[in-house]
Amino acid sequence: MSNSPQRISIVEVGPRDGLQNESAPIPTPVKSQFIDRLVAAGLTQIEATSFVHPKAVPQLADAAEVIAALPDAPGVTFSALVPNDKGLDRALASGLKRVAVFTAASDTFAQKNINMTVDESLDAFEPVIARALEAGATVRGYVSTCFVCPYEGEISERRVGEVVRRLIDAGVDEVAVSDTIGAAAPNDIRRVVGHVLSLVPADRLALHLHDTYGTALANVVAGLELGITTYDASAGGLGGCPFAPGASGNLATEDLVYLADRMGIETGVDLTKVVEAADVVAKVLGGQLPSRQWRRLRGLCGMNDSGL
Amino acid sequence: MSNSPQRISIVEVGPRDGLQNESAPIPTPVKSQFIDRLVAAGLTQIEATSFVHPKAVPQLADAAEVIAALPDAPGVTFSALVPNDKGLDRALASGLKRVAVFTAASDTFAQKNINMTVDESLDAFEPVIARALEAGATVRGYVSTCFVCPYEGEISERRVGEVVRRLIDAGVDEVAVSDTIGAAAPNDIRRVVGHVLSLVPADRLALHLHDTYGTALANVVAGLELGITTYDASAGGLGGCPFAPGASGNLATEDLVYLADRMGIETGVDLTKVVEAADVVAKVLGGQLPSRQWRRLRGLCGMNDSGL
Repeated sequence: MSNSPQRISIVEVGPRDGLQNESAPIPTPVKSQFIDRLVAAGLTQIEATSFVHPKAVPQLADAAEVIAALPDAPGVTFSALVPNDKGLDRALASGLKRVAVFTAASDTFAQKNINMTVDESLDAFEPVIARALEAGATVRGYVSTCFVCPYEGEISERRVGEVVRRLIDAGVDEVAVSDTIGAAAPNDIRRVVGHVLSLVPADRLALHLHDTYGTALANVVAGLELGITTYDASAGGLGGCPFAPGASGNLATEDLVYLADRMGIETGVDLTKVVEAADVVAKVLGGQLPSRQWRRLRGLCGMNDSGL
Repeated sequence: MSNSPQRISIVEVGPRDGLQNESAPIPTPVKSQFIDRLVAAGLTQIEATSFVHPKAVPQLADAAEVIAALPDAPGVTFSALVPNDKGLDRALASGLKRVAVFTAASDTFAQKNINMTVDESLDAFEPVIARALEAGATVRGYVSTCFVCPYEGEISERRVGEVVRRLIDAGVDEVAVSDTIGAAAPNDIRRVVGHVLSLVPADRLALHLHDTYGTALANVVAGLELGITTYDASAGGLGGCPFAPGASGNLATEDLVYLADRMGIETGVDLTKVVEAADVVAKVLGGQLPSRQWRRLRGLCGMNDSGL
């Protein structure tokens, strides 16, 4: 761990990746309060919503309203997912200065998720990225299924490297290498991210982890050892499956902050205030959240009482 | 990870550490079925119960019956916790050939848990260990709160080293260095276990982790890198707080097996069959279990449906 960074950046994806799967409609003012509290917690990069077609993700159909209600927060960068030109137009019209595009490392996954092969999606996104940059915005890229695909199984690090490189060449300033199904272990992080680092410097990469198999923090540690300094996370661990209270979604922001605090790595983020932000959504969902810290601090008994 | 072991041993503590906090009474035949299935899953070291005073842990008051019903399983070692001479007598009378004693690295914790200081407990256990060895049994030792104490806070690695060394000198063949409240991060593992390894060889140590803060698998990876090859775990992640379904207890055996499988490390344990063992207890508890794999395989939605 001697190579571990002294400070990491957290990209908060709760308002977008965390909420998009929730079937219970979350009122726009609740989303705004959630975002306000995330800002209060010290998060400085927040993916606030998605300008995908409202029919594809009804939960985020209020994207323009959410962006219009964003707080005036100096030093905080808000972004939104855009799937195409039309989404970019809506994002730019909302005044956003940062957008995110998304593809995958697995063709089958890309076909099922965005109805294009990976190469087709890159062809489609290149002009979108160019237009965003011309309009003065910056662009982030996501690459899904960088380790394991639910349809294709193991993913080759060479393929991940090609896709990441192509996004960077197209003008994306940061690529989130994503463990979409949360199946990666630290050796996968080392294999894939290690290879990608031979093509792209560490400061252009982020790790986007899900905690489905409980390996997310182990994978963060592997990322730290590789010099990765940007990690996506979702307050409350939101982003799981809506009909399973407590099922795991994204790596929880507060769990990541706990690990960083305990390892002496600065985040600038207040753990307790992240939990308070997650409370806003928990109240509407009427359920438990999967985050370990949320459960601990909300009295759902984190502590082992056994004495051993 | 080049130093990572190719094979690890898992000490299954579910029937003891996993069940002892459950307030719902679990019938003896259910415990026996649980243990039978753990054996079927390939676990070869199983802590089956505890010979503490029945009033202290009513759930395990049937210790003698549980031991009497153990399957005839060549190659499997069953053990039980013993708190004192009387517990040892009961364990030996039951025919067990392996027992476990327990102390802590924190005096306040030891006082609250076993009503002795750490040194007093070591003084008390030394003759118990000697008697067990004379009777032809082997002895395991647990040291609680080796990283963080809920009362004293940070624990010094020197103190942990002293306690571990004294247990080994007393005749214990393996010491489980325990993160009782699950608060440790990988740097804690490196600090404490790294120091203990200057006093005791790796094959005399086990890591006993709880997943309260989501760091258990990250801590396993840190342990692997230090050459630790024995890990305690509890099927289903049992061992949390009884009134909080899904709250985290011990590191779940199946989650540990997942990590090991994915990292190419042999365990000899079948993940699916561990989940089937946990089912037996889940049915009686009528609730969810915290294990990620149990949730995934029992349809509680491990997978991220979001597409990113």
